[in-house]
Amino acid sequence: MNESIGFIGLGNMGRPMVSGLLKAGYAVKAYNRDPSKLQAVVEAGAESGSRPSDVTKSGGIVISMVANDAALEEITLGQDGLLAHLGPGGIHISMSTVSPEIARKMHALHEQQGCSYVAAPVFGRPEAAANKLLWVAVAGDAAAKERIHGVLDALGQGVFDFGEDPSNANIVKLSGNFLIVAAMEAMGEVALLAEKNGVDRSKMIDMFSHTIFASSIYQNYGKRIAEKNFSPVGFEMKLGLKDVNLVLDVAEQSHLPLPLVSLAHDRFVSGIAKGRGEHDWMEIVLGASDDAGMK
Amino acid sequence: MNESIGFIGLGNMGRPMVSGLLKAGYAVKAYNRDPSKLQAVVEAGAESGSRPSDVTKSGGIVISMVANDAALEEITLGQDGLLAHLGPGGIHISMSTVSPEIARKMHALHEQQGCSYVAAPVFGRPEAAANKLLWVAVAGDAAAKERIHGVLDALGQGVFDFGEDPSNANIVKLSGNFLIVAAMEAMGEVALLAEKNGVDRSKMIDMFSHTIFASSIYQNYGKRIAEKNFSPVGFEMKLGLKDVNLVLDVAEQSHLPLPLVSLAHDRFVSGIAKGRGEHDWMEIVLGASDDAGMK
Amino acid sequence: MNESIGFIGLGNMGRPMVSGLLKAGYAVKAYNRDPSKLQAVVEAGAESGSRPSDVTKSGGIVISMVANDAALEEITLGQDGLLAHLGPGGIHISMSTVSPEIARKMHALHEQQGCSYVAAPVFGRPEAAANKLLWVAVAGDAAAKERIHGVLDALGQGVFDFGEDPSNANIVKLSGNFLIVAAMEAMGEVALLAEKNGVDRSKMIDMFSHTIFASSIYQNYGKRIAEKNFSPVGFEMKLGLKDVNLVLDVAEQSHLPLPLVSLAHDRFVSGIAKGRGEHDWMEIVLGASDDAGMK
Amino acid sequence: MNESIGFIGLGNMGRPMVSGLLKAGYAVKAYNRDPSKLQAVVEAGAESGSRPSDVTKSGGIVISMVANDAALEEITLGQDGLLAHLGPGGIHISMSTVSPEIARKMHALHEQQGCSYVAAPVFGRPEAAANKLLWVAVAGDAAAKERIHGVLDALGQGVFDFGEDPSNANIVKLSGNFLIVAAMEAMGEVALLAEKNGVDRSKMIDMFSHTIFASSIYQNYGKRIAEKNFSPVGFEMKLGLKDVNLVLDVAEQSHLPLPLVSLAHDRFVSGIAKGRGEHDWMEIVLGASDDAGMK
Repeated sequence: MNESIGFIGLGNMGRPMVSGLLKAGYAVKAYNRDPSKLQAVVEAGAESGSRPSDVTKSGGIVISMVANDAALEEITLGQDGLLAHLGPGGIHISMSTVSPEIARKMHALHEQQGCSYVAAPVFGRPEAAANKLLWVAVAGDAAAKERIHGVLDALGQGVFDFGEDPSNANIVKLSGNFLIVAAMEAMGEVALLAEKNGVDRSKMIDMFSHTIFASSIYQNYGKRIAEKNFSPVGFEMKLGLKDVNLVLDVAEQSHLPLPLVSLAHDRFVSGIAKGRGEHDWMEIVLGASDDAGMK
Repeated sequence: MNESIGFIGLGNMGRPMVSGLLKAGYAVKAYNRDPSKLQAVVEAGAESGSRPSDVTKSGGIVISMVANDAALEEITLGQDGLLAHLGPGGIHISMSTVSPEIARKMHALHEQQGCSYVAAPVFGRPEAAANKLLWVAVAGDAAAKERIHGVLDALGQGVFDFGEDPSNANIVKLSGNFLIVAAMEAMGEVALLAEKNGVDRSKMIDMFSHTIFASSIYQNYGKRIAEKNFSPVGFEMKLGLKDVNLVLDVAEQSHLPLPLVSLAHDRFVSGIAKGRGEHDWMEIVLGASDDAGMK
Repeated sequence: MNESIGFIGLGNMGRPMVSGLLKAGYAVKAYNRDPSKLQAVVEAGAESGSRPSDVTKSGGIVISMVANDAALEEITLGQDGLLAHLGPGGIHISMSTVSPEIARKMHALHEQQGCSYVAAPVFGRPEAAANKLLWVAVAGDAAAKERIHGVLDALGQGVFDFGEDPSNANIVKLSGNFLIVAAMEAMGEVALLAEKNGVDRSKMIDMFSHTIFASSIYQNYGKRIAEKNFSPVGFEMKLGLKDVNLVLDVAEQSHLPLPLVSLAHDRFVSGIAKGRGEHDWMEIVLGASDDAGMK
Repeated sequence: MNESIGFIGLGNMGRPMVSGLLKAGYAVKAYNRDPSKLQAVVEAGAESGSRPSDVTKSGGIVISMVANDAALEEITLGQDGLLAHLGPGGIHISMSTVSPEIARKMHALHEQQGCSYVAAPVFGRPEAAANKLLWVAVAGDAAAKERIHGVLDALGQGVFDFGEDPSNANIVKLSGNFLIVAAMEAMGEVALLAEKNGVDRSKMIDMFSHTIFASSIYQNYGKRIAEKNFSPVGFEMKLGLKDVNLVLDVAEQSHLPLPLVSLAHDRFVSGIAKGRGEHDWMEIVLGASDDAGMK
């Protein structure tokens, strides 16, 4: 029988991930700050806890999938936080998109308690999470990674190992998100060029996403960008800004000026200013059409 | 037996394209401004001509693959140009990366002579041309496209039709090239972020190019960018600037400000200023590492 | 008694310049493509001509103040153009904002005819022209500059000599215009920062324009930008784009990437796309407020 | 007889400001974290204190001129901080370049103690401070501003009042610094354009800074930029980045994308990456010449 796993954070990504673990035969005990989100996973077979410590067993495995650095600190170090209960040999798999800086801090704090902090952020939207189609970048203590192998396999279609320093995996996650942002802006700009010159923008993006750019990002994002179809919301623009700001922070600490990141930053700030903060981040492409005076 | 085809322009792309036509069973008569390039294709089985008109038959098919608008005008309208000899029913397949503007002009001039100008620019580097792996975007008169179907099939693995206005195919070509430029800059920026933070840049780019960005551009360009391996030269930076300037021209005529294109423009101008004009355009990524004071 | 001077181009700048010459005691014979503009200067005391050659005397002085390179070529080299009548010793003072490239071409053509082409573009809006408050950058043949000294003095409050190559003065003119564009964008951005944070934007711009930036540009443009008062139109946005494009052309030929110029280019393209092409170029500042979703 | 004033922070700006107060007849008691800086002002007639509280009298006036938000918090709220000793009716004149956010926080904390926090940042480099040539932007409680009128007059040639909310003055200061940055970048770009095209860059900048841009910033910075003379250091590039980051933070909180600020940010990050962090911030102009491959 499979191990029992704690799970903290039942947002758009967390809920399908819990389902995936249950389907793979893991027992799951879940916690979410807003308890109304618990019902769905309980119906799917999970147990519920009412605080982070409830879902944490000494020497066990707990996964967190929360919104940002502050939430990660809260569920780990705050009142009834998990760290005080994780104990020797315990493993905290942190799958959230957070800063490399907090990963380094968490790594040190977990080590002091004799347990492990493994960063394992994922690529994929909620649909991918529901279908075991996530891609996982993992970094952390070698023995811990060995032990959680099956858990990560239950969630994704592939796991890529970036070494022992957990922050490495967060750098990879931020980099991947930024590549998506760049691809969205680029597709948005050429789609406008096509549209303004009488070329069918969907047909053009469709060509690229099935030839030289034949990949899930260009296909999935490309189709929706070409069709200007931004619902339902998979990932909010304000979270896009959060991620771009994390990239800018790391870049500045690394003495790297990255002009494409700066451009993306300004696009997201503008989108939020125009009331699109809770729309899908694909609406970054409206920046260029607004600039062109288009409705 | 297959038709005989004229071919003008034996650069890095033209030579393997002639080979492809010969392998597919077409008779080819080729011309190049610099005749030293003729030998290779003659050895492969082509006939040679000493001026554009030599390789053009009334009512026949002639393909051009030349450097820019000026070269296209020269071989078409200049002394011994092809247009005066193409005659009623003849088809000029223009596969060069040229401006939509010249395509419109050529279209009109060919129509006046009772022949057809079909734009059919291609995606793929010389290796792809040699292996029938090009992708073709085609636009022009429907009957002409019907007749050249087999010719395009002999050169590429897929043909995408963008309607009757030849300039449409040029818009698509410029858009595709710009998407490549954007992907290069984005990969370059995140590779630096990784490198400066102790993450293996090759492993990271490799992950992306086999997961969410699993496509030939991210794989082929990504690998070389990650490894900082820019030889041999497949496409020169100064040609990259030419293409970006064509995009900017079309964009300005369309009243479209495209900041990512402007950024790419400045990167190429800078690269050329630093003596990289004849290096591979992938060296656009050196812009960011120069800005970061790296050697 | 003062010399008689030909004057070509009676736009917003040309008309007050003719008045200035008349007031200074020069006889003026003027030509404008659209003859309806002639009436005002005739009433002020000028003679009228019906073609460029009419206002050009062999060995005399003719001033041109026209819209762009094409207009300069037309009045100089076109039918009834001035160059064929300017004769040995004649001087063409070209005060238009044109490209350094056309200046070099004109210089050579005038020299072949034994006459001189002196570039003398000016800084100042129409009000300044009416009040002898222009600033003049001059470059050209030394003897010619000596002879036209009084003429330039009649138009401006100061003349700055940039050597014998006429194109130098055009570089200076383009540089100055670009400095104005940069100052407008910068003032626009900080005015928004003030406004959004409860600081009186007019008071703030007023402080700067009377302290560390105490100068006519910051005062005149600053006041109107702070007050969002863009009428009447002194210089159209589409002319602003023309000038920025001239800067970009020269920069590219010089292998100079200038990101602030690229930014200004995109702002003007956007403004024109939004229907502001014939508004005052100060409306460049609306770009930032549009981006911020402000009405 | 004049009031006695506390003064905290004896950097490049603080020392000449103390001299100014002494010359105006004020008694000054000064404190600096690094006591070696005290000697100069003691020789000029000031008393010295060994902690912030030493130079603070209940109901008195204390001026602070420190490096950043953290230093302001330290001297105000830290051990032996001034706030605990300022008492009812006391006034803290904060002349540092700090964030509007810390100004709001300080304002509230001082109010709770019955004393006043007045923001009064200044424009001018050390030479200006030594010659009573600073410009002051002031904001805070009306009665407090009334009382400190003479003090501010002793330091600068003009005081501009931006209302009762202290953070307003900090917005003005950040805006002014950003205008300077924009002017430096713009002058740097056109100076290169001139240089690369055979125009004397010093003569050109000299013309502008004595005509349409006749102001101290264009004259002082312009001369040094034109001559590429960046010593001695008046204001370090790393402080420039600090200020630009404050502008970006305020802008983002205000939902304002400001592309010229983003460009300046990237320039400073690049300059610091290249080892220029402690050079004068005018070296921002080397960004463009580096991009052009110039030595």
